[in-house]
Amino acid sequence: MKRRHLFGAAAALLASLSLAGCNDEKKVESSAEPKAAASEAPKTYNWKMVTAWPKNYPGLGTAAQRLADRVNAMSDGRLTIKVYAGGELVPALEVFDAVSRGTAELGHGAAYYWKGKVPTAQFFTSVPFGLSTSEMNAWLTRGGGQAFWDEAYAPYGVKPMVVGNTGMQMGGWFNKEINSLQDLKGLKIRTPGLGGEVLTRLGATTVNMPGGEVFTALQTGAIDATDWVSPYNDLAFGLHKAAKYYYYPGWQEPQAVLEMLINQKALDSLPDDLRAILTEAAGAASRDMVDDYVYNNAMALDQLKQQGAQLKRFPDEVLAAMREQSDVVLGELAQQSELNGRIWASMKAFQEQVTPMHEISEKELYNWR
Amino acid sequence: MKRRHLFGAAAALLASLSLAGCNDEKKVESSAEPKAAASEAPKTYNWKMVTAWPKNYPGLGTAAQRLADRVNAMSDGRLTIKVYAGGELVPALEVFDAVSRGTAELGHGAAYYWKGKVPTAQFFTSVPFGLSTSEMNAWLTRGGGQAFWDEAYAPYGVKPMVVGNTGMQMGGWFNKEINSLQDLKGLKIRTPGLGGEVLTRLGATTVNMPGGEVFTALQTGAIDATDWVSPYNDLAFGLHKAAKYYYYPGWQEPQAVLEMLINQKALDSLPDDLRAILTEAAGAASRDMVDDYVYNNAMALDQLKQQGAQLKRFPDEVLAAMREQSDVVLGELAQQSELNGRIWASMKAFQEQVTPMHEISEKELYNWR
Repeated sequence: MKRRHLFGAAAALLASLSLAGCNDEKKVESSAEPKAAASEAPKTYNWKMVTAWPKNYPGLGTAAQRLADRVNAMSDGRLTIKVYAGGELVPALEVFDAVSRGTAELGHGAAYYWKGKVPTAQFFTSVPFGLSTSEMNAWLTRGGGQAFWDEAYAPYGVKPMVVGNTGMQMGGWFNKEINSLQDLKGLKIRTPGLGGEVLTRLGATTVNMPGGEVFTALQTGAIDATDWVSPYNDLAFGLHKAAKYYYYPGWQEPQAVLEMLINQKALDSLPDDLRAILTEAAGAASRDMVDDYVYNNAMALDQLKQQGAQLKRFPDEVLAAMREQSDVVLGELAQQSELNGRIWASMKAFQEQVTPMHEISEKELYNWR
Repeated sequence: MKRRHLFGAAAALLASLSLAGCNDEKKVESSAEPKAAASEAPKTYNWKMVTAWPKNYPGLGTAAQRLADRVNAMSDGRLTIKVYAGGELVPALEVFDAVSRGTAELGHGAAYYWKGKVPTAQFFTSVPFGLSTSEMNAWLTRGGGQAFWDEAYAPYGVKPMVVGNTGMQMGGWFNKEINSLQDLKGLKIRTPGLGGEVLTRLGATTVNMPGGEVFTALQTGAIDATDWVSPYNDLAFGLHKAAKYYYYPGWQEPQAVLEMLINQKALDSLPDDLRAILTEAAGAASRDMVDDYVYNNAMALDQLKQQGAQLKRFPDEVLAAMREQSDVVLGELAQQSELNGRIWASMKAFQEQVTPMHEISEKELYNWR
């Protein structure tokens, strides 16, 4: 049964009665606020979601669309969300601004894309050598992380929610081998967020650009290397056709939160049930995206190997230097504001607390199977 | 804005118009089916959920209650779910039967509890040395697992959905040290599912009993050892007060799916939007339960250590024998029916496919941080 149709039927009936000139108008007015009922119902919210992803991009873009579809189904069409690819309505890296000023009610992207505007945002995508996917989620929902995130975005009238996680990423695609720290010097590499800053300290030149531009930049030699995501997305962009070596581990992004941005005023305008629907859809889409990456990364890694991608591990010496510089960069970021200091202290404490449990559980599993 | 109130207002208006004897009855009847609209809406579904858990039990019971609360909020009260603890309406281990015969529309438990009735169910909680949490979810939603699960329960008129996962568990609480395979012989231990069968092959005597009975059985010496879940739940039961040694890794349950059981006829009776709401609530509750365990296991492990629990690792020799017997037990289960054979082939193939990705991602992270 479609409720909105029923509702529409009731409204149509009221209208027809009115047009028919029912004689008993007084009676009508004394009943339960019929005019308000007829004019307010069924209130429909038609929202826009701007994203940082290419059209229908696997994993990232499809998760945004899935969320929109499910909200539509759960609300029986009372809350519809039209999803826009990066560049359709606003450029990929201007999603945050668009939601902040109300051009769109919703956005989907990654917090570190807006680091120029909100440096604090960098904590909320990924921290090098930091929390894993399940740990990051637990810190956000149970360890106080969400409250910090809300605090960071509140001045811009934006409410963030997790919608997805790519899981642990890869180190990236390189057109030259990295055999020592020396090989990083002068390297032109696309790596956003804190990982990019670490590479800068190690002598590389880092740039940020949306995913849609990465392949061409790598193929033309405008950059020597790039991180992107993991096999699923990297195969979709054909990055193995633009670079020879595929490095691991993804030290710079042990997990990566994707965020839904919500214009706070728009959120406040929703009735309670639609707010609950939007919130739960975010939770369900988050789980679904992780499933998507776990499954498709496994399949895509196979294909990349078959198509000639050469898997390489960063040397221990390089990883050690990366970790050392990560601590420096994070320490400096923590110094930039009182809020940053509180966030970093909380994350570090949680990582220390949660590590002993992983030592005796999943680490054992992966080492034993 | 409460839609059901609006709807009620519209219905009340129609009723008042009718009672008022509006003269234009023909007009009313020729409009869009007003009587159906007035009598069908708002249809409310008041469902019962029987569970295998003690009242308000942390993690397991609270996840069931959270799902009920969120469904209520999203549906604006059109679908309400009353949660019953094990023993309140039906015994903890009879949840499957109760949902199958329609005593309750919903259940929450773990598939291996019904192995006596549906041996195939054992694949859908946990497989020793098998898939991790994120891998199991991916196999279910992307790798064909859900279709197998549906097929296994369809003869009983029951539809299963994931609602939660405890993550990797612990090896359990022991009143004597396990220094060699010899120490397992004659041991009376509570371990359900395939893990229990493996221990039986290694000479232990295994029993299944609901969680609520475990503490007393261990303290009185009715059993020598028990697995239960992980620090969060084990602390809640005070198991460290009933046994001295806390063993890891949880070889028998590298993850453990909690399942929502739905009476198929009841599910079919729901309108599309409420089905979507129930499905998405399951997805969101699943993510939330994992957060709950990751956070609280870390906190509880600390407390257990402080309160004297002695952490012990199973010797390699014992783990190797457990793994060997697991293969035997799973091979036999796969032989029991054509469906079991297909399921085991699918799970094994997926584990082989997904392992190389974990080798270069999360395993690296846990070894490196």
